[in-house]
Amino acid sequence: MPAMRKIPVNLGDRSYAVRVGPGLLDELGRTVASLPHAGRAVVICDSNVAAIYAGTAQKSLAKARVAGEVLMFPAGEESKVLPVYCRLMDEVLGLTPPIDRNTVVVALGGGVTGDLAGFVAATALRGLRLIQCPTSLLADVDSSVGGKTGLDHPAGKNLIGAFHQPAAVLIDVNTLTTLDRRQLLSGLAECVKHAFIRDETLLDFIEARTADILACQTDTMAELIERNVRIKAAIVSADERESGVRAHLNFGHTIGHAIETSVGLGNITHGQAVALGMVAACKIAVTRGMAPPAALVRLEGALDSLGLATRENGLDARQLLPAMRHDKKARAGKLRFVLPTAIGEVAVVDDVTEAQINQAIRYISA
Amino acid sequence: MPAMRKIPVNLGDRSYAVRVGPGLLDELGRTVASLPHAGRAVVICDSNVAAIYAGTAQKSLAKARVAGEVLMFPAGEESKVLPVYCRLMDEVLGLTPPIDRNTVVVALGGGVTGDLAGFVAATALRGLRLIQCPTSLLADVDSSVGGKTGLDHPAGKNLIGAFHQPAAVLIDVNTLTTLDRRQLLSGLAECVKHAFIRDETLLDFIEARTADILACQTDTMAELIERNVRIKAAIVSADERESGVRAHLNFGHTIGHAIETSVGLGNITHGQAVALGMVAACKIAVTRGMAPPAALVRLEGALDSLGLATRENGLDARQLLPAMRHDKKARAGKLRFVLPTAIGEVAVVDDVTEAQINQAIRYISA
Repeated sequence: MPAMRKIPVNLGDRSYAVRVGPGLLDELGRTVASLPHAGRAVVICDSNVAAIYAGTAQKSLAKARVAGEVLMFPAGEESKVLPVYCRLMDEVLGLTPPIDRNTVVVALGGGVTGDLAGFVAATALRGLRLIQCPTSLLADVDSSVGGKTGLDHPAGKNLIGAFHQPAAVLIDVNTLTTLDRRQLLSGLAECVKHAFIRDETLLDFIEARTADILACQTDTMAELIERNVRIKAAIVSADERESGVRAHLNFGHTIGHAIETSVGLGNITHGQAVALGMVAACKIAVTRGMAPPAALVRLEGALDSLGLATRENGLDARQLLPAMRHDKKARAGKLRFVLPTAIGEVAVVDDVTEAQINQAIRYISA
Repeated sequence: MPAMRKIPVNLGDRSYAVRVGPGLLDELGRTVASLPHAGRAVVICDSNVAAIYAGTAQKSLAKARVAGEVLMFPAGEESKVLPVYCRLMDEVLGLTPPIDRNTVVVALGGGVTGDLAGFVAATALRGLRLIQCPTSLLADVDSSVGGKTGLDHPAGKNLIGAFHQPAAVLIDVNTLTTLDRRQLLSGLAECVKHAFIRDETLLDFIEARTADILACQTDTMAELIERNVRIKAAIVSADERESGVRAHLNFGHTIGHAIETSVGLGNITHGQAVALGMVAACKIAVTRGMAPPAALVRLEGALDSLGLATRENGLDARQLLPAMRHDKKARAGKLRFVLPTAIGEVAVVDDVTEAQINQAIRYISA
């Protein structure tokens, strides 16, 4: 058993543990086998991840004498849609022998895989157990914890989905070595987000260890991931279904999602869009006198040192505003913003004016 | 406000009330408006129900000043599939102005509509509130209560779905007047099932009031529905996700589902298949010495007086057994049977032999 950090996610009878450490994918088989009445495993991954990690997953299952199949879908954000979901359901339900309620779904991959395989697990036989094995930093610190599953729709991101908590999460930090820089940066933006909404000492850590983080140094990454998962787990435990404080996780996302939609999914990473959204939200907070100007300076400084852009040419409020209004977090067309009040503290606000939004978008497109 | 019976379904923070009475569809608007932060309503119904009841629903919404849209799908069990679900999701997510988390989905129709619209509600924006307005006896006493939503798949019935409890259930007994006899009988089979698994006095009631029931006499039907909903509500409250006693509701369903699959959906009603399945299960129980022969006599007598067949020509165990093994309730290929031990009592058994199953199928195909 490799060195391992364990973070509990407390959700009553839906509680589970997140394990973080190098080589944890080798523990997949034992983790499946440890679930009550565990049957076979169905591993879902994209074509890229299959080439690198499906073998390790299968070996681990075989070692624990768990029967396992691997189902693949084409890599890319554009796979997170109903037609790919329908094809996967056909494959899962067409397996021989047929799956039953003891079958365990394993989501092996990044955020797209977690969302798509998670939705398959949520809806096959009205809910199968799910193990999240994230392989990207973004999935490690964000999407693999908390039970959100979902698909995109032409009308917007994540408009289809369900809450379905995993039975376990295994974060193998060694998988970060196969991540390209762009994807690493995308995850780091969410780490900065967590620091900004809850924990100034995490921001201190990121600033002090920037070089080790960018070099993907194992211990540093394990600590970074653990600290982020603890923040996410605490928020999810307090508000599983996003009726309250879980909304804080949307810091940077109101404008960030709109940027993703307007620039075109695939042309910008989620984290890079969120980084721009955080700068814009922080700018709004400073303009309104809610946050000190120093917060914006420190946010931009941290993003900049990591290599995340704080400006993007050609953003246009006339394009971004309609996309924001269509976001599922909007209520009756009213935009809700999560704005910093200090580093480590945010407030939810629904009276941001169009003028303030326009000014902030001009600021980040400068 | 018409005369009304109210049955609570106790499920912690997912509790809701089932209301039963004549003319309750007129209360839809007020019911939507009474939900916290209720936004607009999206009514989903099939083409047949739309012609009869969509106007009433819309009038009631308008009177309560609730904005409402009606979305339709083709009538028939064959609509309970992924392609129709995908089309409905496109429609729901394509509405102008866009739906938000305060939008309330209304399932107006029989069991197919409840399952399909319920799955739409479960998965649009990761879960919208749902009001079930059943218009068939089967949906009244069975599918509208308990939160099961689902779609059929070529591999089997209800293999796709989610648990999603409604926020309210409105059972307008006047809608029974537009139900054809075949559909009425289908619902009555489930009433006999509830009596057999939990309440001998309900069987007494059905036997004593058979004529009034078959004439759809309003007070009799309201009492019949109330008594059945109370049984279903108690079982669902005790076991929301079917890990224990909820399995008792599957009395007659192991063989019944297989008959539906083998005869072909649409060629036999769900209730009629369940009636045959109950006779077969009761036969197995008598053969094993678990139930007194008198139980089988009384079951067949009750079904017979109502007009439900207790025999069906040409059933073949060689066809039915593989379908049973593929049922999602099977575990690792093992068949589970709910067998009566007395009238009003059942036990779950997983050691029924193939010989016992063959004998029972020969019995009902005699």
